[in-house]
Amino acid sequence: MPQSAITAPVPAQSTYQNRVAEYWNAERNPVNLELGRIDDLYHHHYGIGDAQWSVLDETDPDRRRDRLTAELHRLEHAQAELLASHLGPLDSGDRVFDAGCGRGGGSVVAHLRYGCSADGVTLSTQQAEFANEQARARGIDAKVRYHHRNMLDTGFATGAYAASWNNESTMYVELDLLFAEHARLLRRGGRYVVITGCYNDTYGQASREVSLINAHYICDIHPRSAYFRAMARNRLVPVHVEDLTQATIPYWELRKKAEHLVTGIEDTFLTAYKNGSFQYLLIAADRV
Amino acid sequence: MPQSAITAPVPAQSTYQNRVAEYWNAERNPVNLELGRIDDLYHHHYGIGDAQWSVLDETDPDRRRDRLTAELHRLEHAQAELLASHLGPLDSGDRVFDAGCGRGGGSVVAHLRYGCSADGVTLSTQQAEFANEQARARGIDAKVRYHHRNMLDTGFATGAYAASWNNESTMYVELDLLFAEHARLLRRGGRYVVITGCYNDTYGQASREVSLINAHYICDIHPRSAYFRAMARNRLVPVHVEDLTQATIPYWELRKKAEHLVTGIEDTFLTAYKNGSFQYLLIAADRV
Amino acid sequence: MPQSAITAPVPAQSTYQNRVAEYWNAERNPVNLELGRIDDLYHHHYGIGDAQWSVLDETDPDRRRDRLTAELHRLEHAQAELLASHLGPLDSGDRVFDAGCGRGGGSVVAHLRYGCSADGVTLSTQQAEFANEQARARGIDAKVRYHHRNMLDTGFATGAYAASWNNESTMYVELDLLFAEHARLLRRGGRYVVITGCYNDTYGQASREVSLINAHYICDIHPRSAYFRAMARNRLVPVHVEDLTQATIPYWELRKKAEHLVTGIEDTFLTAYKNGSFQYLLIAADRV
Amino acid sequence: MPQSAITAPVPAQSTYQNRVAEYWNAERNPVNLELGRIDDLYHHHYGIGDAQWSVLDETDPDRRRDRLTAELHRLEHAQAELLASHLGPLDSGDRVFDAGCGRGGGSVVAHLRYGCSADGVTLSTQQAEFANEQARARGIDAKVRYHHRNMLDTGFATGAYAASWNNESTMYVELDLLFAEHARLLRRGGRYVVITGCYNDTYGQASREVSLINAHYICDIHPRSAYFRAMARNRLVPVHVEDLTQATIPYWELRKKAEHLVTGIEDTFLTAYKNGSFQYLLIAADRV
Amino acid sequence: MPQSAITAPVPAQSTYQNRVAEYWNAERNPVNLELGRIDDLYHHHYGIGDAQWSVLDETDPDRRRDRLTAELHRLEHAQAELLASHLGPLDSGDRVFDAGCGRGGGSVVAHLRYGCSADGVTLSTQQAEFANEQARARGIDAKVRYHHRNMLDTGFATGAYAASWNNESTMYVELDLLFAEHARLLRRGGRYVVITGCYNDTYGQASREVSLINAHYICDIHPRSAYFRAMARNRLVPVHVEDLTQATIPYWELRKKAEHLVTGIEDTFLTAYKNGSFQYLLIAADRV
Amino acid sequence: MPQSAITAPVPAQSTYQNRVAEYWNAERNPVNLELGRIDDLYHHHYGIGDAQWSVLDETDPDRRRDRLTAELHRLEHAQAELLASHLGPLDSGDRVFDAGCGRGGGSVVAHLRYGCSADGVTLSTQQAEFANEQARARGIDAKVRYHHRNMLDTGFATGAYAASWNNESTMYVELDLLFAEHARLLRRGGRYVVITGCYNDTYGQASREVSLINAHYICDIHPRSAYFRAMARNRLVPVHVEDLTQATIPYWELRKKAEHLVTGIEDTFLTAYKNGSFQYLLIAADRV
Repeated sequence: MPQSAITAPVPAQSTYQNRVAEYWNAERNPVNLELGRIDDLYHHHYGIGDAQWSVLDETDPDRRRDRLTAELHRLEHAQAELLASHLGPLDSGDRVFDAGCGRGGGSVVAHLRYGCSADGVTLSTQQAEFANEQARARGIDAKVRYHHRNMLDTGFATGAYAASWNNESTMYVELDLLFAEHARLLRRGGRYVVITGCYNDTYGQASREVSLINAHYICDIHPRSAYFRAMARNRLVPVHVEDLTQATIPYWELRKKAEHLVTGIEDTFLTAYKNGSFQYLLIAADRV
Repeated sequence: MPQSAITAPVPAQSTYQNRVAEYWNAERNPVNLELGRIDDLYHHHYGIGDAQWSVLDETDPDRRRDRLTAELHRLEHAQAELLASHLGPLDSGDRVFDAGCGRGGGSVVAHLRYGCSADGVTLSTQQAEFANEQARARGIDAKVRYHHRNMLDTGFATGAYAASWNNESTMYVELDLLFAEHARLLRRGGRYVVITGCYNDTYGQASREVSLINAHYICDIHPRSAYFRAMARNRLVPVHVEDLTQATIPYWELRKKAEHLVTGIEDTFLTAYKNGSFQYLLIAADRV
Repeated sequence: MPQSAITAPVPAQSTYQNRVAEYWNAERNPVNLELGRIDDLYHHHYGIGDAQWSVLDETDPDRRRDRLTAELHRLEHAQAELLASHLGPLDSGDRVFDAGCGRGGGSVVAHLRYGCSADGVTLSTQQAEFANEQARARGIDAKVRYHHRNMLDTGFATGAYAASWNNESTMYVELDLLFAEHARLLRRGGRYVVITGCYNDTYGQASREVSLINAHYICDIHPRSAYFRAMARNRLVPVHVEDLTQATIPYWELRKKAEHLVTGIEDTFLTAYKNGSFQYLLIAADRV
Repeated sequence: MPQSAITAPVPAQSTYQNRVAEYWNAERNPVNLELGRIDDLYHHHYGIGDAQWSVLDETDPDRRRDRLTAELHRLEHAQAELLASHLGPLDSGDRVFDAGCGRGGGSVVAHLRYGCSADGVTLSTQQAEFANEQARARGIDAKVRYHHRNMLDTGFATGAYAASWNNESTMYVELDLLFAEHARLLRRGGRYVVITGCYNDTYGQASREVSLINAHYICDIHPRSAYFRAMARNRLVPVHVEDLTQATIPYWELRKKAEHLVTGIEDTFLTAYKNGSFQYLLIAADRV
Repeated sequence: MPQSAITAPVPAQSTYQNRVAEYWNAERNPVNLELGRIDDLYHHHYGIGDAQWSVLDETDPDRRRDRLTAELHRLEHAQAELLASHLGPLDSGDRVFDAGCGRGGGSVVAHLRYGCSADGVTLSTQQAEFANEQARARGIDAKVRYHHRNMLDTGFATGAYAASWNNESTMYVELDLLFAEHARLLRRGGRYVVITGCYNDTYGQASREVSLINAHYICDIHPRSAYFRAMARNRLVPVHVEDLTQATIPYWELRKKAEHLVTGIEDTFLTAYKNGSFQYLLIAADRV
Repeated sequence: MPQSAITAPVPAQSTYQNRVAEYWNAERNPVNLELGRIDDLYHHHYGIGDAQWSVLDETDPDRRRDRLTAELHRLEHAQAELLASHLGPLDSGDRVFDAGCGRGGGSVVAHLRYGCSADGVTLSTQQAEFANEQARARGIDAKVRYHHRNMLDTGFATGAYAASWNNESTMYVELDLLFAEHARLLRRGGRYVVITGCYNDTYGQASREVSLINAHYICDIHPRSAYFRAMARNRLVPVHVEDLTQATIPYWELRKKAEHLVTGIEDTFLTAYKNGSFQYLLIAADRV
């Protein structure tokens, strides 16, 4: 893919968006890079499922470290597969849209699963370049492409996509603008999937822990209600909603033991999940 | 419970509501009555889960009939338990509201599970009387009561309920009026659960099969989208959504073999589920 | 008109729309074809006005049949003229849009009355071809054209139409999408007219009879309220609303006596009109 | 009726409402009083229908004057009867609400037609007293009562009315507040009727003539679209809409010849009706 | 600027808009023309700030007249500068949009202050030609251009403007259509400013004085609330709101003494401002 | 005031509200207490206006400390007076509502200025008791009362208040619920004033600094747009909006030098104000 495709003009961004782009252009967290190196699937999200706690019993420091890294990657990959499993059925003639693609792992997962083409977008030129490099190395760059674009205003063709998703990237944008763009891009009957951390309206307003997570990532976590209101306004109709909070806690419990990977936000996530103010949610919806 | 409680003045009803009440006052379908007699849990809804197909191999006509009846009841009960499992946690000090209670099975299930008090309402005086009689026989009439009232305008106290539900009764009413009443009755943080057949907006407008079901029951099945739009307008925020379509098909396949129980609508349901125009859906939502 | 114009690409349709198209591609009801043959005006709607009951006194079977056919056609034509009378004033330089044109009668009526150009659209290729053939035979194919297109997404030019209408075709679509397209196509001050069967919110939800009509035609009759809500959202302002229910009953009473034309739905219509659950309504509105 | 009922506390009014009340407390236009004296039906609205132009040929000045007065009253009465004809069916057990009752003619017309009870409200204590005096004189004060109250906040019982109307009184209030109160007062299935001058959105914004009428009466004429939008938000569904503009022009043509009755606004009305910027409209709607 | 640019096709206008255009094509009020001649800045709005009352003490009639003219122009110019001061910061690379530009003074003020380019639109061909002639005479016609266009549908490029405004021109249009067009034209973060007379919802509906002003100018003054509602729907977020009512009264007090300039509406404005029914308001808002 | 009035039953609160109440029950920040002790006016908000920087030149540590305290108190008091100046005109017969009253300073300021009665509410029993004790000590407890209640559901009488406000307390609640309660409590024409920190939609989503402030106070700062949207939905119409960001910066610059008073959040506020992501805003609005 020619470099120019990455750097096609991005519509004027807000200061906020520039700051987010700077953050991700500079980001080199081991928890993202070291896990990705295992099988060249670079995820930028958290994991789900029961952890193999025995890795903590490993006494050799290097092996403990490697096994911890591998186990966390396994849990993150399980999350990516769960999301992808809700996109289908799709075939190799279909096209999917990965909104907030990070270093590109999700699009690769979808392509490998369904054979479909994928377009990922990110505000970070570094991430787009990295992800395209990975696609070239894997020999799938004819079908999987990453773009430095604004997910709210992609410039992609109306109705061209059979499925689309956000994997932990909705907290950077206004949901009404985002879902309007997904609704525009998806064909009638297309499927949209989101996995996200949301704050829990049942608890009340955003808790201190939620605000600390916002400060950590420069993001703006939405209440759960906001997702359903914005979907209702944009012809996205939920068909499957699943509270993954309990399923993600093992990932965080394990991660806080991985000294070589922690970013410092681990306890805040665990407190937020456990005091009921924060939820890890999957929504699959149809474009009607 | 004194008779007067059942027949407290019901606000003026529409002609449509009178016709629905007449239908249920007169209804004596074996599929409702014979199943209920097994353990005095009278459900008015369909079943879910894998069926024991071996009951069809039974050669003795009476035993075949009894085993079929029991198996269908088992599947219906599984549905009631699934719904009830989403109402909690609740304790004996809590009160729940059963909107469209039919002959009362759902309220009994909730009471047995949590010890909570329950108020069921139905447009049918016959159903309310029958259900109260059952509660008296079971000795739980101090905690479980049925009322001849309009679920859109119950007259019950604001914020008095910890949980509420509709089990296949939303297709008789306008959702905005219904959810406004649930939102009024539920305390902050209360849980609402609905299991319903809805038509699938992904398919398009209501299919011929959906209209035949409407004609059969004098009901007006809503599109899936209508549930999420009306919830969004009434402070009910989904937390779990599950497509039970595949799970309910065995029930219908088995039921069409039960000559003593069929009502004639079985094939229409099966066609509607299989051609994608109709879905069996559970939504659990929080009152925020 | 070249064949290609009929078969220009129709945007992806829902399964529901495909099923409706199949229905009308296969439809050969005598009540549509035999009436149309009288003067080559093929209507696909019902009639209004007082019937000449004396046709039933005719004792010669052939003449009775012919006179019944002619009388029903006269009533249907009166309906078409009533609708057309609300479109004006128009002149030969104006263009009108016939949404759901069936076999084309309405566009011919409008053209003959005002000299205007007309574009009719239908999901059925059979109907579009048939109607274009009629226009050619009449020598008006330069001004009256029929297209195989989706009325929700015609691809026609914005603001190009002085008037538009739906004659009993709104029950196949979502009203918000439909009226958005009419509002887009009409010039400022343009006129929109609809004649439709709607269910009566005063009665309540859809009655059994309304559902049987839905099942018969694979349609999805809207409540009366839905028309006014959707118009209010789409800059269509009513200026004339007329309840044609009493005016259409003679047509149905007569039709049920015409053994060679009945489709079997006649009694259901009559019951629905008479029990107050169904109305035959004309709305004329201005595009502001 | 005791005096106290008239002067029951009116909720705090705006300065605008006080000014309107002062206007009507002071108003003694011959066109209202002289016409009313004929048969003690005091209307405060305009007339409809064909005029007997021969009254203008009368050469005796006194007889000309009397015949003109009588003819205008006949046309105003025809309007009141048209409105009342859309309220039914009603019987003597029903109650109706006359919003902006003026000197009370409309409530008397409805009572005489249906035998129903009526409550009229007006901001003017003078009008309420005058109207109650008339009811006493007629011996119908047990069934027809007038109140000095705000039509936006009557304090009357919810759902107590079978029908209600505004006869040329909607231009003094916000329609959303007004229709919310009508919707609250009407029982399910109740009928609301309005006759009003509205400005025509098809023409554009309010014309100079519309503004001059506003200035004359201290009122604020709404666009036609506003009625349908506000009804759509308040569960009032139109069933009959009729443009009375042509039907009211004879009244105005005749009135401008009646030197003893003219108020000076006659030519402005005629110009407004004829240039298309203003319409005289009847809407009958159901409370659903 | 070529003549053709002025007369580019204006989308079909309503009768109302045509009448407004005729009014302004014919308008030659001294209060607009004589003031403009002083320094070739032709404003079409009112003034603000404390007046130098000493001009009234001038005894020489010609000097009194000249000084009055100059003082009123000074106050009008102060208003234009206040508006312009809220547009910034802007530089010479920016483009601004002047909606309802009249004879062009506001665009010149903005250009002189910031060096930016300006596009003004007016329904009046006379005004557009006059203003372009002024720009040519001033030698700024490469940067400041006036167009005969509809401000609701300019055809200008999306997101091309850094700032835009209406100076007393919003009372001729529907605010939702207007603000949608401003929101479309402004870039993200762009600034919109309006100065307008609005009627005061706190007082109630439009007062008689407001209606007389409407009749005078053929306009349709909006309530204050309408501005904030329409902005909220169109992503325009207020950042500064200032009630200029007291600040504009001196202008009107002085103007009513200027016999050579009065138009006859002066006392009506003063009464309206003083009885609380009318306000002179500035709103500065950000396009988000 | 009897103790019982403070502890009247508060409707069930969310976990979030309980946590906020705990925070304020425990809060003993010198910046609130030491400043208040100066004149027994306990403010819980920030200051505005130019600071007397010379206090920093004071070399005697005790005097420096006292002068700094006094100067910050002067700036906070100026803010309270600015807010109060927008409430009027009011007289001693009027009643005002102080939503989120903290230790009560604002209600005292309003009472001293206008002689009006005041009701303050707070979620903190400690604050309510403290404030009532102050009122008793001042001898104004017959007119100024503090209540332990939820500002979203006060139980106070509808329409009983001439003015109301939130001084830096809106970030703890949903604005739609809050403004609905203010609209309910205010009489027609009543005045509402809010001073608040809001995040700036022009900048984008919430910045890291805004999130840190949220984490510090357990609050949930709204975007500026949210205020205007929620007011538009609740009949609150802005009449004065003022960006106080520049006016509050001196307060923060000075406060960060006051070692005995700093809470550690000072630099975050300054960065947020200066990078454009955060604004200090006053809105005065009328209840229409």
